[in-house]
Amino acid sequence: MGDGGSVVKRFLRPFRGEALRVPPVWLMRQAGRYLPEYRATRAEAGDFLKLCYTPRLAAEVTLQPIRRYGFDAAILFSDILVVPDALGQPVRFADGEGPRLDPIRSREGLAGLDLPGTSSKFDIVAETVQRLRQDLPPETALIGFCGAPWTVATYMVQGQGSPDQAEARLWAYRDPEGFEALIDVLVAASIDYLDRQVKAGADCLQIFDTWAGSLPDDEFDRWVVKPTRTIREALADLHPDVPVIGFPRGAGATAVWYVSETGVDGIGCDTATPPFVMSEAFDEEDVVVQGNLDPLLLVAGGARLDERVDEILDLMEGKRFIFNLGHGIVPQTPPEHVARLVARVRSRG
Amino acid sequence: MGDGGSVVKRFLRPFRGEALRVPPVWLMRQAGRYLPEYRATRAEAGDFLKLCYTPRLAAEVTLQPIRRYGFDAAILFSDILVVPDALGQPVRFADGEGPRLDPIRSREGLAGLDLPGTSSKFDIVAETVQRLRQDLPPETALIGFCGAPWTVATYMVQGQGSPDQAEARLWAYRDPEGFEALIDVLVAASIDYLDRQVKAGADCLQIFDTWAGSLPDDEFDRWVVKPTRTIREALADLHPDVPVIGFPRGAGATAVWYVSETGVDGIGCDTATPPFVMSEAFDEEDVVVQGNLDPLLLVAGGARLDERVDEILDLMEGKRFIFNLGHGIVPQTPPEHVARLVARVRSRG
Repeated sequence: MGDGGSVVKRFLRPFRGEALRVPPVWLMRQAGRYLPEYRATRAEAGDFLKLCYTPRLAAEVTLQPIRRYGFDAAILFSDILVVPDALGQPVRFADGEGPRLDPIRSREGLAGLDLPGTSSKFDIVAETVQRLRQDLPPETALIGFCGAPWTVATYMVQGQGSPDQAEARLWAYRDPEGFEALIDVLVAASIDYLDRQVKAGADCLQIFDTWAGSLPDDEFDRWVVKPTRTIREALADLHPDVPVIGFPRGAGATAVWYVSETGVDGIGCDTATPPFVMSEAFDEEDVVVQGNLDPLLLVAGGARLDERVDEILDLMEGKRFIFNLGHGIVPQTPPEHVARLVARVRSRG
Repeated sequence: MGDGGSVVKRFLRPFRGEALRVPPVWLMRQAGRYLPEYRATRAEAGDFLKLCYTPRLAAEVTLQPIRRYGFDAAILFSDILVVPDALGQPVRFADGEGPRLDPIRSREGLAGLDLPGTSSKFDIVAETVQRLRQDLPPETALIGFCGAPWTVATYMVQGQGSPDQAEARLWAYRDPEGFEALIDVLVAASIDYLDRQVKAGADCLQIFDTWAGSLPDDEFDRWVVKPTRTIREALADLHPDVPVIGFPRGAGATAVWYVSETGVDGIGCDTATPPFVMSEAFDEEDVVVQGNLDPLLLVAGGARLDERVDEILDLMEGKRFIFNLGHGIVPQTPPEHVARLVARVRSRG
């Protein structure tokens, strides 16, 4: 989506080459359980997936943190497991538990997936994006997203979250061609999904690779870097002006290589990313750095929060930078701490 | 423990400055559930902690993988939570679940800990070490260990394992002096514990910091680096010839800094540590590198396992190196794959 002749949104300016004195700010999982208004809408929806699939409600929870805090960007409210669900591997969310799927652990299991069938669920998400495009303040960017193929695959193969993603990693070792067929399905579906989000009005895209950090380098290259590059290249052909942020959580020392190999326009840095990596390691790359306040410091609050915000701002001064957390905001976060954070960032002006 | 005038054990030679064509090899959690003889001894003990606290049985399971595979080092069979248990915070292991403790979440809770009370449980572990010193082949080194104060604290504060160590991290942010008091207790107990292990016959020590990777740099410095340095320095005074290996799992790009700041003699690299870090990043440090085969590749086996073993050996050729996994061996590992791994490493000779 072009800028319609209007001023470029603040959020997008770092991607156009600008280092802003007051960086744009948004928070991963900013639409979430820490907000009472979110919990009310969630209760109205009843089921978590129903919240994702009801455009009026999904748009409402996306807007809630924008109304409260005036973040520079909204992020579409959805879930990374919408993709397998849309592909015909149903996802269930039981209260207080993580997601559950009937696992796919072999090439044969892929036959049950239904790629053309994705359209109706993706259409629903696109409708949410369209609503948001209408309802968001004109200065607020809208971020669309998907889970990276590797991370989504770990849930599809394990059938749930897991500390070590063992089933996906074992399949990838035992039958790399079969596992690649699953990744290929996810790459194609992700391109389609992100393309629709942009067509519906997303200004920017983020690819969440939550479990990127569990892989040795050769597997990281094959299952994290290559699929992400394919998605990035396809999107660049379709929508050359829409930046893509990669978030390879836990990639550590490998994040620089991820940036140069995938061609992402922005790199999300997790909480453990050390300052010298944030401020120097990406200097040779044409990339916007995003991150990386500890979400638990946002829970704790106080003077320590202010100091750390200042440290990050000092560190990234003069860089193309977006202020964010290093992981998603957690439910026990006091909403007033978020207000304090945003005020602190903007007090640099 | 000196070498009694005899030849230096192969395992210790990299610490004396030698790069061996065939590196020493051992595997984290090599005494474990993947071995049928371990499961038999475990069943005899009944309870997991009872296995740790019965010297005859703990020594037996320590010896089992040495008999099968002739590893260059045995590692004392015990658990990192022996320390809180010995300090008077009882640990329970329910079958199929992780450890459970009544959590300590404030300075007041520390009053219930009983530092002098550690002696009897540490004595039991020392007795296991003495037995091992007698029963191990003379060429086999014996590694003692403890959990790092940070990692042990995460369990003591959370009361169990957790994906994000939230309770410990929150305490550390909200009341750093109080949390430091807990860390100080653990530092003192760890020094005592490791000192006893060396006096009883351990040739080398490893400090397991499983959750080092969750912390931002300032917290990493205060809760991971500084306590480890204190332990390292105390041990260097007591036992200057006994090398200490640090294993800050997930430390990523920060591992080099960890090495230079803590003064550890060996650095355990996890599975995600990229080759250039393994082979080059530590060149300026006087340190032995250990790692980092993916334990899941050891489950998968086959030609891919052989190739990866060769890649790691090629990469580390000419370096002071110890072959190991990047994480602990997993229960579903076929024992014959371990034999294949050891043969492959030794075929370099």
